[in-house]
Amino acid sequence: MSKPSIPKGTRDFSPTEMVRRNYIFSTIRKSFQRYGFMPIETPAMENLSTLTGKYGDEGDKLIFKILNSGDAFKQLRESYPDEKLSTFNFPLSTISEKALRYDLTVPFARYVVQHQNDISFPFKRYQIQPVWRADRPQKGRYREFYQCDADVVGSDSLLYEVELIQLFDEVLTNLGIPDFTIKINNRKLLSAIAEITGEQDKLIDITVAIDKLDKIGEDEVVKELKEKGVSDKAIDIIKPLFSLKGSNAEVIAKMRTILASSEIGQKGLDELEYIFSKIAALGLQHAKLELDITLARGLNYYTGAIFEVKANGVSIGSICGGGRYDDLTGIFGLKNVSGVGISFGADRIYDVLNELNLFPEFTSETTQVLFTNFGENEVNYCLPLLKELREKGINAEIYPSDAKLKKQLSYADSKQIKYVVLVGSEELQNNQITLKNMQSGEQITISKTELFKHITL
Amino acid sequence: MSKPSIPKGTRDFSPTEMVRRNYIFSTIRKSFQRYGFMPIETPAMENLSTLTGKYGDEGDKLIFKILNSGDAFKQLRESYPDEKLSTFNFPLSTISEKALRYDLTVPFARYVVQHQNDISFPFKRYQIQPVWRADRPQKGRYREFYQCDADVVGSDSLLYEVELIQLFDEVLTNLGIPDFTIKINNRKLLSAIAEITGEQDKLIDITVAIDKLDKIGEDEVVKELKEKGVSDKAIDIIKPLFSLKGSNAEVIAKMRTILASSEIGQKGLDELEYIFSKIAALGLQHAKLELDITLARGLNYYTGAIFEVKANGVSIGSICGGGRYDDLTGIFGLKNVSGVGISFGADRIYDVLNELNLFPEFTSETTQVLFTNFGENEVNYCLPLLKELREKGINAEIYPSDAKLKKQLSYADSKQIKYVVLVGSEELQNNQITLKNMQSGEQITISKTELFKHITL
Repeated sequence: MSKPSIPKGTRDFSPTEMVRRNYIFSTIRKSFQRYGFMPIETPAMENLSTLTGKYGDEGDKLIFKILNSGDAFKQLRESYPDEKLSTFNFPLSTISEKALRYDLTVPFARYVVQHQNDISFPFKRYQIQPVWRADRPQKGRYREFYQCDADVVGSDSLLYEVELIQLFDEVLTNLGIPDFTIKINNRKLLSAIAEITGEQDKLIDITVAIDKLDKIGEDEVVKELKEKGVSDKAIDIIKPLFSLKGSNAEVIAKMRTILASSEIGQKGLDELEYIFSKIAALGLQHAKLELDITLARGLNYYTGAIFEVKANGVSIGSICGGGRYDDLTGIFGLKNVSGVGISFGADRIYDVLNELNLFPEFTSETTQVLFTNFGENEVNYCLPLLKELREKGINAEIYPSDAKLKKQLSYADSKQIKYVVLVGSEELQNNQITLKNMQSGEQITISKTELFKHITL
Repeated sequence: MSKPSIPKGTRDFSPTEMVRRNYIFSTIRKSFQRYGFMPIETPAMENLSTLTGKYGDEGDKLIFKILNSGDAFKQLRESYPDEKLSTFNFPLSTISEKALRYDLTVPFARYVVQHQNDISFPFKRYQIQPVWRADRPQKGRYREFYQCDADVVGSDSLLYEVELIQLFDEVLTNLGIPDFTIKINNRKLLSAIAEITGEQDKLIDITVAIDKLDKIGEDEVVKELKEKGVSDKAIDIIKPLFSLKGSNAEVIAKMRTILASSEIGQKGLDELEYIFSKIAALGLQHAKLELDITLARGLNYYTGAIFEVKANGVSIGSICGGGRYDDLTGIFGLKNVSGVGISFGADRIYDVLNELNLFPEFTSETTQVLFTNFGENEVNYCLPLLKELREKGINAEIYPSDAKLKKQLSYADSKQIKYVVLVGSEELQNNQITLKNMQSGEQITISKTELFKHITL
């Protein structure tokens, strides 16, 4: 029999990885709560109709569809009895009506509309759940991965943009990342650029092209703009923006002039100035906040601020993102509800912490004390002590059989257990225990009543 | 546009429900760790071949299959070009090779075999993840639900049975359930019964029938045994067992006699006596431990102890289960690895806590302080105070716009926020704040530096 395996692009997580991942999730969760966000969860499966058409044609192809249960083909056979397989174009809905969620944003929009009468707005929610995408698997890209999202809907107040920047700063600082940059832009500036270049109808093409600047470079972006039919005159205006230099205030000042004729452009700059002034007054911990007017982010539903966070000094892509959207719930029939949200990329953050060696020791998640097993009498002597340690909050266990001591100690080693309690016939007779510190190698024999106070974690 | 919905049998969880569910999960998780179990996670999708044939024919039908991505029908069309839909029996594998996990046990067995070289045995793992079943949805039965499993594989020591009983007791006591019964039996007794009645070949039929005793009653069980061809003579031996009365020790004594001729029966009784003696020495908190020789549990892979837990005084079915299996990993080619595990039913436990009104207040998960918003100057005054509270670990937020006070206070009410900070022009002038306790209605005006020390949670 060949060894069993798992589908490509998916992963098992070992105890070591799990403890580290849970540390990331719980750090994020704690800060989400600190900022007044409340948890929700939505089902892994959504109706296919909820998901299709929300992620573009490419996205639709990457949605994992679930076969209807029972005989999935029955309806198909009955509806098209004389159809030949070779020529027939199967309507998907006859065999699949459900799909796995592709992100947390569309299910959240669906949730808000479905439960609008039970929600008091502004609604601040967070959601930490896996999503599934049938992307081609490659290094750092998986078919199942967690998203950690915080969004607030039902208010267009820029105070939330300010708060979300603080939230990025708090979480990543608490995770110990020494140096990271929060890049910010505003979609209104991109609209204004399209406007002043006379290319309003090509706003999406321009956004998509500029979004690739980091990856493919200036020449290729210009090439793509040309291919999409953006005029040379427009490109002459856009190109200098790629290398606009200076402090945030200086860039804003330059853009004020460039976008002088665009009302929406001035509004975008007003919004950015408001955010910068508030953040300047409050300060940030480890984060730098940087206006990057070439930051575009692919998602079409953004309409205001957009964010992207990168850790400096490592060659790992963006670890967080987000932005303001003015009409996310509109797709489900609830109009004019503005929202803004951010997302932490747990896998990328894991890679950053790993590369920078920033994971702490996790003694509280692993076994701290192992009782060795020298036979029935010793076990009976140890079990009440084991129970007592657990009641006092110590993670402890007993080796299940009287195997050779070497084997028992090697079990302790493999689980990185700090203390081993040894009880042989002598300890048994004297009401004592021998406590071995596996890190220092030190070993002491003490009264069994003293065990707890000799354990320091 | 009609309101969006979710697939039948699935659920959204609101903030209130989530906070309660997380309380249950984290209580379970803490105890799992206390007993030396380490977390793993496996992907939501497994290869279909990993899952099929493991849950019986009925189970196979309830597995959610995932459509191959891309054009799922391409292979089918090309392989069977002239086939007619009406007559063709589609081979599932041509359009689906993956499926959603049906439980955590089979993926765990797959994990152990796949990673056997990286695991040091005995391997104590816990796993808290959702599973999916295409069951007909009904009250209390969902198509997506969480399982919370702790298993240890690689040892046949009965110390683990003892420890898992303690674990049931600890978790459910910590959740505040005042009175619950851990029923225990041993599959070896069921084998022995089949043996002494001369019906060894009908062991599974007998087990399945007895398993229904609680639900359908004695007469129906006897009827089912007859239908399965169990002899009248055998039924005459089995039937008195349904009403065997007495303490655990008394029942064991009676069974010693009844099963006198069966070696495996005596072994099962030895195991039970060992477990009872250890538990008697250690004591339990809120749990009663009760031998129930009619406890059968449907799962065929159990070979030793079996467990089932019920909360007393509520009409909710079993809330936990578990047992010993001697060859779970054998299905994936790793023979002779004994294991024992238990599972907590989070949904059922939720219902018990809800019905008995046992959920505590969850102030640390929700917003504790709301700053009202009376305009730009007041906001600028409040933002540093808000930041300070958050840094001190208080969950706090500011209302996003200068809406009418009534609206802001009703927002605080709907989120059950305990404190509201009011800053108007007077407070602004005097470097003060007004702190309103929303529970008592009490309101005090204090220096802004005193805010933190007036908050008691």
